[in-house]
Amino acid sequence: MEIVPDALADALVVFTPSGRRGRFPLGTGVLDAARALGVDIDSVCGGRGLCGRCRVVPGFGDFAKHGIHSRPDHVGEGTRSEARYVRLHGELGTGRRLGCQARIEGDLLVDVPPESQVHAQVVRKAADALDILIDPSVRLHAVTVREPDMHEPSGDLRRLREALERDHGLVDLRVRPALLGTLQKALRRGDWHVTVAVHDGVEILAVRPGGLDAWGRLAGLAVDVGSTTIAAHLVDLASGEVLASAGAMNPQIRFGEDLMSRVSYVMMNPGGDVEMTAAVRTAVDGLLGRTCTDAGIDRTDVFDATVVANPVMHHLLLGIDPVELGGAPFALAVDEALSLDAADIELGAHPAAKLWVLPCIAGHVGADTAGAVLADRPDARTGNTLLIDVGTNAEIVLGNSERLLACSSPTGPAFEGAQISGGQRAAPGAIERVRIDPETLEPRFSVIGSTLWSDEAGFAEATVGTGVTGICGSGIIEVVAELFLAGVIDADGTIRGELAERSARVVADGRTFAYALHDESASGGVTIRITQNDVRQIQLAKAALYAGARLLMDRLGIERIDRLRLAGAFGNHIDVTYAMVLGLVPDCALDAAGSAGNAAGDGARIALLERGARDRIGALVRRIEKVETAMEPAFQAHFVEAMALPHRTAAFPELSKAVTLPARVAAADAGAARGRRASRRRARL
Amino acid sequence: MEIVPDALADALVVFTPSGRRGRFPLGTGVLDAARALGVDIDSVCGGRGLCGRCRVVPGFGDFAKHGIHSRPDHVGEGTRSEARYVRLHGELGTGRRLGCQARIEGDLLVDVPPESQVHAQVVRKAADALDILIDPSVRLHAVTVREPDMHEPSGDLRRLREALERDHGLVDLRVRPALLGTLQKALRRGDWHVTVAVHDGVEILAVRPGGLDAWGRLAGLAVDVGSTTIAAHLVDLASGEVLASAGAMNPQIRFGEDLMSRVSYVMMNPGGDVEMTAAVRTAVDGLLGRTCTDAGIDRTDVFDATVVANPVMHHLLLGIDPVELGGAPFALAVDEALSLDAADIELGAHPAAKLWVLPCIAGHVGADTAGAVLADRPDARTGNTLLIDVGTNAEIVLGNSERLLACSSPTGPAFEGAQISGGQRAAPGAIERVRIDPETLEPRFSVIGSTLWSDEAGFAEATVGTGVTGICGSGIIEVVAELFLAGVIDADGTIRGELAERSARVVADGRTFAYALHDESASGGVTIRITQNDVRQIQLAKAALYAGARLLMDRLGIERIDRLRLAGAFGNHIDVTYAMVLGLVPDCALDAAGSAGNAAGDGARIALLERGARDRIGALVRRIEKVETAMEPAFQAHFVEAMALPHRTAAFPELSKAVTLPARVAAADAGAARGRRASRRRARL
Repeated sequence: MEIVPDALADALVVFTPSGRRGRFPLGTGVLDAARALGVDIDSVCGGRGLCGRCRVVPGFGDFAKHGIHSRPDHVGEGTRSEARYVRLHGELGTGRRLGCQARIEGDLLVDVPPESQVHAQVVRKAADALDILIDPSVRLHAVTVREPDMHEPSGDLRRLREALERDHGLVDLRVRPALLGTLQKALRRGDWHVTVAVHDGVEILAVRPGGLDAWGRLAGLAVDVGSTTIAAHLVDLASGEVLASAGAMNPQIRFGEDLMSRVSYVMMNPGGDVEMTAAVRTAVDGLLGRTCTDAGIDRTDVFDATVVANPVMHHLLLGIDPVELGGAPFALAVDEALSLDAADIELGAHPAAKLWVLPCIAGHVGADTAGAVLADRPDARTGNTLLIDVGTNAEIVLGNSERLLACSSPTGPAFEGAQISGGQRAAPGAIERVRIDPETLEPRFSVIGSTLWSDEAGFAEATVGTGVTGICGSGIIEVVAELFLAGVIDADGTIRGELAERSARVVADGRTFAYALHDESASGGVTIRITQNDVRQIQLAKAALYAGARLLMDRLGIERIDRLRLAGAFGNHIDVTYAMVLGLVPDCALDAAGSAGNAAGDGARIALLERGARDRIGALVRRIEKVETAMEPAFQAHFVEAMALPHRTAAFPELSKAVTLPARVAAADAGAARGRRASRRRARL
Repeated sequence: MEIVPDALADALVVFTPSGRRGRFPLGTGVLDAARALGVDIDSVCGGRGLCGRCRVVPGFGDFAKHGIHSRPDHVGEGTRSEARYVRLHGELGTGRRLGCQARIEGDLLVDVPPESQVHAQVVRKAADALDILIDPSVRLHAVTVREPDMHEPSGDLRRLREALERDHGLVDLRVRPALLGTLQKALRRGDWHVTVAVHDGVEILAVRPGGLDAWGRLAGLAVDVGSTTIAAHLVDLASGEVLASAGAMNPQIRFGEDLMSRVSYVMMNPGGDVEMTAAVRTAVDGLLGRTCTDAGIDRTDVFDATVVANPVMHHLLLGIDPVELGGAPFALAVDEALSLDAADIELGAHPAAKLWVLPCIAGHVGADTAGAVLADRPDARTGNTLLIDVGTNAEIVLGNSERLLACSSPTGPAFEGAQISGGQRAAPGAIERVRIDPETLEPRFSVIGSTLWSDEAGFAEATVGTGVTGICGSGIIEVVAELFLAGVIDADGTIRGELAERSARVVADGRTFAYALHDESASGGVTIRITQNDVRQIQLAKAALYAGARLLMDRLGIERIDRLRLAGAFGNHIDVTYAMVLGLVPDCALDAAGSAGNAAGDGARIALLERGARDRIGALVRRIEKVETAMEPAFQAHFVEAMALPHRTAAFPELSKAVTLPARVAAADAGAARGRRASRRRARL
């Protein structure tokens, strides 16, 4: 008989947190009522009190908000099945009942705790917490297995499979060979009651004696392998909670700072890819060890892992020679998502742990970009999102729910502080914020590791230990933008030497001029000048970035974007206002522009926790239209045009307001499109 | 347009070896004609000249037998597709054409060579060759892969998959992680033409540059792990040919001679199972190495393996503690067939090689019996087959196409020469054949390693080196049967001491008597006596064997079997006539009784070559009704009754004829059913 709510029935039942409510006859099962109302509640044993997934918390008292008075006698007494469950698995938890056993005997408020919801949401705890559906690929299933019988000599594994099919609907499960040796003891130690870790509903990974409570943690690792750094998050697969995070420098740096130099290393040193594969795998495994130690769990509690990486890192991690990615046609060995074993990349998790590698989009647009798309969901919005991950290359995705485009643009390493005279990576001591007084042309700045400006009292003390060491990517953007806003740099990017008469900051530097940002040479410290070449490098980089974005806009047939997200470390640090001043990115309403956080890593975490996300990004990546910038004449045209500063800033009144553009900047706009010198292309990686 | 034979068409075509014939219009394709006639011919590329599977050999001349005159101009000229195929893959082979390209231009005889037949049969070359359908789990597929294109940046793997789907209908193939690192180079070395080893139509194991001809051998290993010996056959997966065979002693013998003592070793020495697992795996790997060396192929040419073994060996090979098999309820950890990787048992074949382990039937009836069933096919016969594999236990299968029963009977090691005073394993020097003159009671015998009888000239010279060392299982059966036929032993198994007056061969031995078969003590050689205890051991063993068979006959409701097969080494050596004289086995027409050869190992070979056989035996094993002899009162009754000699031999006139039974034997028959002393049971393993 189907249970349906009945407006004339005796008892009113309200479920929280959903707020769903309905009246049911006395004696109706709580689980039945929940299902009749469409409440999100788990149960896999067919309501037989076996699985313990439908635990609920009846609430008693006056609940004015819900218009209900709920008393302890409004829920039926504990049943034999519940007693049996407690005997086998320990406590149900304070105030908890099995929804399939508890009966409605009067008006009742019933809370469905997160662990009983199939589609539990992570509570948004920190700023960068995401709403992730918790439906991991690896799940636990508790079963009671039939004991062996001499008259019906089926093996332990067959009887385990029977139980998994009977109670959880899992059929035709594959088995890890190593499991065969542990199965007998687990069944006998658990007195034929065991909990089974199952991957994707198709493969048994491990069996442990006892019920779900006896299992302990079930964890997974989300890994983001960048060219420079590797980050890993250890995640509780049941709650979605990040148990620990850790980062490390990519040890491949000793083979070359950037991707192209690592590919070159392999070209020059046959077998060099094997060294690099070993180095990156060791580093990832080390992060697993550190996060496990921090979280106080064992490596063998880790049953799943996901990886995002750019194409070269992706190939090297998987043991694939990356040389093909170093030249046209930039052919990936494999682009699709890969479902592997953690052991395949020598990750010392549980021996049966799985590994899922996000798909690559193209030879220059990797699984990291796929992760960013998965986290930012431009495909779930009607407006046009421009999603940019800036590194040595910029990966650019543009589109909406109908259509998505992607390309990679060869920005070069200037945005990361490389090929800049005083440039360095973002690290303590690096200048990251710069302001220049448009009247005096005097600068002030702040460095990573201190919250003070350089002209504030205590700055020197606050930077003791590091001092000022250089200027990082976001600092370079700001100083060039401020120099431009202060009129020190003109619209075609030339440092105006005539200002040397007005300010000692503008100094001759060979046949060009430079801006003296910082000089501690007298006290043995560094001297940081912004040279004409530095400005040119930034112009080249920003023109490439802009041209890539513009090319995608042309393809999509739009003139304005509705939403802008900058991903990655650079995207997190850069002030988007200055990015627009310099024309790194197309114009966008400032309140619709912002950081996407560590979107690639977030994508790895989502893929770890929600198996549906794996199919989603797999299908989406195939839908993304790949645009090859190197083959597009329009890219060259946009690139040349975008060399000038600022690019059509006048068309964007909000920005002018935000940074109080001086009048002369607007005038300078007319002089744009003069960057003729910049037509050479750099290596693509 | 569908091609059909047309009785009025111009050209007569005859295909060999099938002999199928039909008339077709001029210009009809040879492959189309073959298909229209139902000729067994391979083709997987849709007749596009890509796969090279449909090669045929047009024959020219007068073929009187077929009533056809075939001329070279009766087949169309070579096509561009064929030229392209030759360019990419080398020669087609002498006189060969692609069936999909060759056109019928007149009366034509066309031979379809074995390699072009889907269901090619192994030619029966040796006595123990089997008719096996060649349809292995691992197959090769040649494809031409689309080259990478910057505008459509799909990875090499995706394009390989596309080609496999397009040309061979293979979809959703899984990939070995290690393959990812080799794929790029294979594709580029093969100039985008590669051959792919695919397992079971679901997983890519390896990719090599070039076409099928460039691959070399594709081999598999069939392994039979016995308690005493391990045998392995290296098989060509394309032709079914046995490339090399090798055997070795099971190194686990150092942990215990028989299965029960090995289980005891584990019970006494925790971790002892790990030692034994390592020992047996090393031995199997050694056989792989030896067979590969003998056949002149590389270990990495071996892509598949199958294993049969009794339950304890099965568990130890798989790394499963066998202790549960040592006591009731004799629970297997796993009974079903297992599809694993060869690496899972540390078999050093190709790193991607697969392993298929035949299913176990019950705790005492293992994958070796399943292999024997697969080879002997009692399920494919309408009459009742009794299939017995005699070892320390006897595994007994009885049934027909409708119904199959199986049990294990605790014969003990007497049939293997153990617990017999002069007993030894079958090895050079062991007495294996015995005749006793019923008048003089003088014996003559032959030993393993010599074809001469002991009373023939040259016997001493022929056995130089070994001499006579003992008596093996088949020798014991014969001597006891001959003693019985000669009247030295009476129907209840007592050695008749009164004959000591008539022959010096009958000698006192404590309170009983013995028969002096051989005495070289004067010259420092062995003395072999058949003692009263020896006869009792044989009685116990044969009673157990007979009782097991009888129990199954009761269950099946039959009084007579139609066919008897003795499998295994003992089954190969024993003279079935003597087995019937002693009542080891139920009566059966002598011409329907015989050896099943190495049926278990044959089963492994069949499973290696015909993937359909895997499903077949998997399903069949589930259908087999398992009878637990230890739980059956009827078994005890049969056992006690079967102690006597001979058991209802008089009911079997053919046997009397065959062995010229003396009259007194038939009389002694009345004294049967007196073996009261034999009710004790032995350990089950």
